[in-house]
Amino acid sequence: MAESEIDEQIHAETLPEKADEHEQLDEENRLKPEYVASVIEALEEEDEGRAYDLVEPLHPADIADLLELLQPEQRHLLAAAITDLMSGEVISELNDYVRDDMIESLPASAVAGIAEQLDTDDAVQLIEDLDPRDQRAILAELDPENRAVIENALSYPEETAGRLMQRELVAVPEHLKVGDLIDFMRDQDDLPTEFWEVFIVDHRHRPVGACQLSWILRTPRHIPLTDVMQRDQTLIPVGMDQEEVALRFQKYALISAAVVDEGGRLVGQLTVDDIVHIISEEAGEDALLMSGAGEGDINEPIRDAYSARVRWLIANLGTALVASLIIAAFGAAIEQLVALAILMPVVASIGGNAGTQTMAVSVRALATNQLTKSNTRRILWREMRVAMLNGVTVAALIGIATAVIFSPMLGLVIATAVVINICTAGLAGVAVPVLFDRVGQDPAVASSVFVTMITDSMGFFAFLGLAVACGLAG
Amino acid sequence: MAESEIDEQIHAETLPEKADEHEQLDEENRLKPEYVASVIEALEEEDEGRAYDLVEPLHPADIADLLELLQPEQRHLLAAAITDLMSGEVISELNDYVRDDMIESLPASAVAGIAEQLDTDDAVQLIEDLDPRDQRAILAELDPENRAVIENALSYPEETAGRLMQRELVAVPEHLKVGDLIDFMRDQDDLPTEFWEVFIVDHRHRPVGACQLSWILRTPRHIPLTDVMQRDQTLIPVGMDQEEVALRFQKYALISAAVVDEGGRLVGQLTVDDIVHIISEEAGEDALLMSGAGEGDINEPIRDAYSARVRWLIANLGTALVASLIIAAFGAAIEQLVALAILMPVVASIGGNAGTQTMAVSVRALATNQLTKSNTRRILWREMRVAMLNGVTVAALIGIATAVIFSPMLGLVIATAVVINICTAGLAGVAVPVLFDRVGQDPAVASSVFVTMITDSMGFFAFLGLAVACGLAG
Repeated sequence: MAESEIDEQIHAETLPEKADEHEQLDEENRLKPEYVASVIEALEEEDEGRAYDLVEPLHPADIADLLELLQPEQRHLLAAAITDLMSGEVISELNDYVRDDMIESLPASAVAGIAEQLDTDDAVQLIEDLDPRDQRAILAELDPENRAVIENALSYPEETAGRLMQRELVAVPEHLKVGDLIDFMRDQDDLPTEFWEVFIVDHRHRPVGACQLSWILRTPRHIPLTDVMQRDQTLIPVGMDQEEVALRFQKYALISAAVVDEGGRLVGQLTVDDIVHIISEEAGEDALLMSGAGEGDINEPIRDAYSARVRWLIANLGTALVASLIIAAFGAAIEQLVALAILMPVVASIGGNAGTQTMAVSVRALATNQLTKSNTRRILWREMRVAMLNGVTVAALIGIATAVIFSPMLGLVIATAVVINICTAGLAGVAVPVLFDRVGQDPAVASSVFVTMITDSMGFFAFLGLAVACGLAG
Repeated sequence: MAESEIDEQIHAETLPEKADEHEQLDEENRLKPEYVASVIEALEEEDEGRAYDLVEPLHPADIADLLELLQPEQRHLLAAAITDLMSGEVISELNDYVRDDMIESLPASAVAGIAEQLDTDDAVQLIEDLDPRDQRAILAELDPENRAVIENALSYPEETAGRLMQRELVAVPEHLKVGDLIDFMRDQDDLPTEFWEVFIVDHRHRPVGACQLSWILRTPRHIPLTDVMQRDQTLIPVGMDQEEVALRFQKYALISAAVVDEGGRLVGQLTVDDIVHIISEEAGEDALLMSGAGEGDINEPIRDAYSARVRWLIANLGTALVASLIIAAFGAAIEQLVALAILMPVVASIGGNAGTQTMAVSVRALATNQLTKSNTRRILWREMRVAMLNGVTVAALIGIATAVIFSPMLGLVIATAVVINICTAGLAGVAVPVLFDRVGQDPAVASSVFVTMITDSMGFFAFLGLAVACGLAG
């Protein structure tokens, strides 16, 4: 565990000044509102020079953040003011919707110019969501080699390794020595801009091993690469879904991985800096999907947000009507004892909350491959035990309160109904997502509607039904 | 965009066999249930040799998965059967709860032995959650150098860069040439097991630049490092929270980053393979927190799951009682027109769903620094427009159905109440998380309870109040 270091020599050079971003960023690394306001002010006063000077010191990722914070009209004004700062790096850091909006306002040749600067994966991302006509116009402006590479990438389905991979990589045959590889890299002009591993391939271009750069650097020149490389590497099939790719990178702590076609030949590589966005997206989207908010991107056009969300509200309307039918069946009881109407939402609400808790846990465990067929029964049993404990605690509280305010019998009825509903919620919270997963549906998407329907219906039914059965009303 | 490659020579060597994991893993890279069952069978028959043979071909990350899938007693049996496969890598891949459970059953000297194999960050993770007595016992077994390093790490607060960083790194003074650095790395025996960048430091050990290994490999020996290195690097203060660290890694697409103390001196490094777990955890935990499921880990002890969840159910009970009070105020109206009791949960439920949608979007945007003071007003206005569209659509559906089944006036009342409640939900769904964020609270934790309380109360109040105001009952 020792830190490796060469003896230092003391010398009096001053530190190079770090770009002074402190004026623009707050302590959480977000752009300060005052700074954003000053950029907007410059744009509104049509003072392009001042806008440029304000933005110039920013890191490309912060320029992207700035563009996202602005209104659409302001974005275009700013982009026009800082054309030479609008690098490929800025563009590839932009939110998808904001990028598409900006790209659509540029001429095809300008977009092609940006695409040529980028690695294939970023270039593909730049144009994949444009409409086919715009796409063709931009492709026509690219030089033939780049065009072929991008067209090839677009031939793979969206969200697969084939779309995400970069074609730029370093692959060498097995017979090289460490020294040969270093000489090769020193001579070669068109190495990828960033790479972390070298892939070793056989004569059919199939990967036989991978070699971290640090292993090359620490090894004498005369050692064969095959003695240094790791033979057992994780290969990503070109058609693999990005969610699956993200899980592999996490599980095996990968920095980069070889992508292979059906014939097992090396066709590209994936690097962790690109996968990090996917890991974050895939992990974060479950909360959005469970709530029925679709992609839930604040930059999504209002029309898209409306159509994604309204369908779940309408589904919810349907399930709420099921609950209403149950209440309607007990209409006479409610007329007789209005306390039932006052208390019934409590039973439904507690059940809904308990169901959402269990569902969130199950969906997350399914997404991270922790909940599989091997332990479903154990987890179901575990959740039932948690539900029993929760049910008894909450039932005691509401039961005693109801007994004091209304009547002991009604207290007993509501307590029993709460226990029944929380246990139902525990069961449904595991079973519904697991069933969706088994039939190949994303458990985050539709579980919520079903779980809520079950807990609402069971809440009203158990409470009102027990009240009638106990002769309280009806 | 060309792939760099040395001319290949054809030769007839056969491919090395990849460890045959196909028998154990399904197409989604999860352990097959039949395989897990066969391991359990071997354990139950006390056939340790067969258990060992079954597990031996697995990758350490898959051995960790296997242990997580087993029941606690089975885990200990398996660990005893495969002692020499229980490497530091397996241990550091284990879920926190499972790891603590397993570590507690081992003698301190065995744990110390595992810790010595690991990088500092993994060694710290191994013992940080143990109770202080166990911790001291293990530290006492470590050699003094490692003990000092781990004690230093434990002196930083949990979930900060100081806890997460590894002390192993390569730091060299500024005056070196590329060739000197390569020679140094070839000579040095105790380089870190994995590293991706070399840090260049001044005489006070403050970082002045960083150099990707690929830049070193492609550069002739006589070039000074200061000509190759990147001066403008992202430095992570040792006290920075892990969520913030994860955001920096994502935003600036970092592979590794230097960690500096208060004096700006280099004290450790963070690498992306460790940060990936944090990115996934931080992004995934919002769904769990919003549902009130706490950490929501399926391996969490039942007692912990109960205490995390029951407090939110009790809070929900409190908010449901607020809604009940509102209903109680309209008791006379309900007695007169039981249709009100039948329909009122619909209004509350739709509002709750709309509120959860907006809240999920806002919480995610806050977590990814996309929703800041600079655009709060714009996002609020955006969400209000989405709410208006949703409200009008859903109100039309339920309004017409109610008008047909009950009465036109009741249809008008419920439609108006739905619009009011969905708009309230849109407002609350943005405002509540933003307010929590402004006062320094995690918006995912408590927003749900408040948003639901607002939409439930507003749903009942608007619907019942309008019904009374329109003379339908009361």
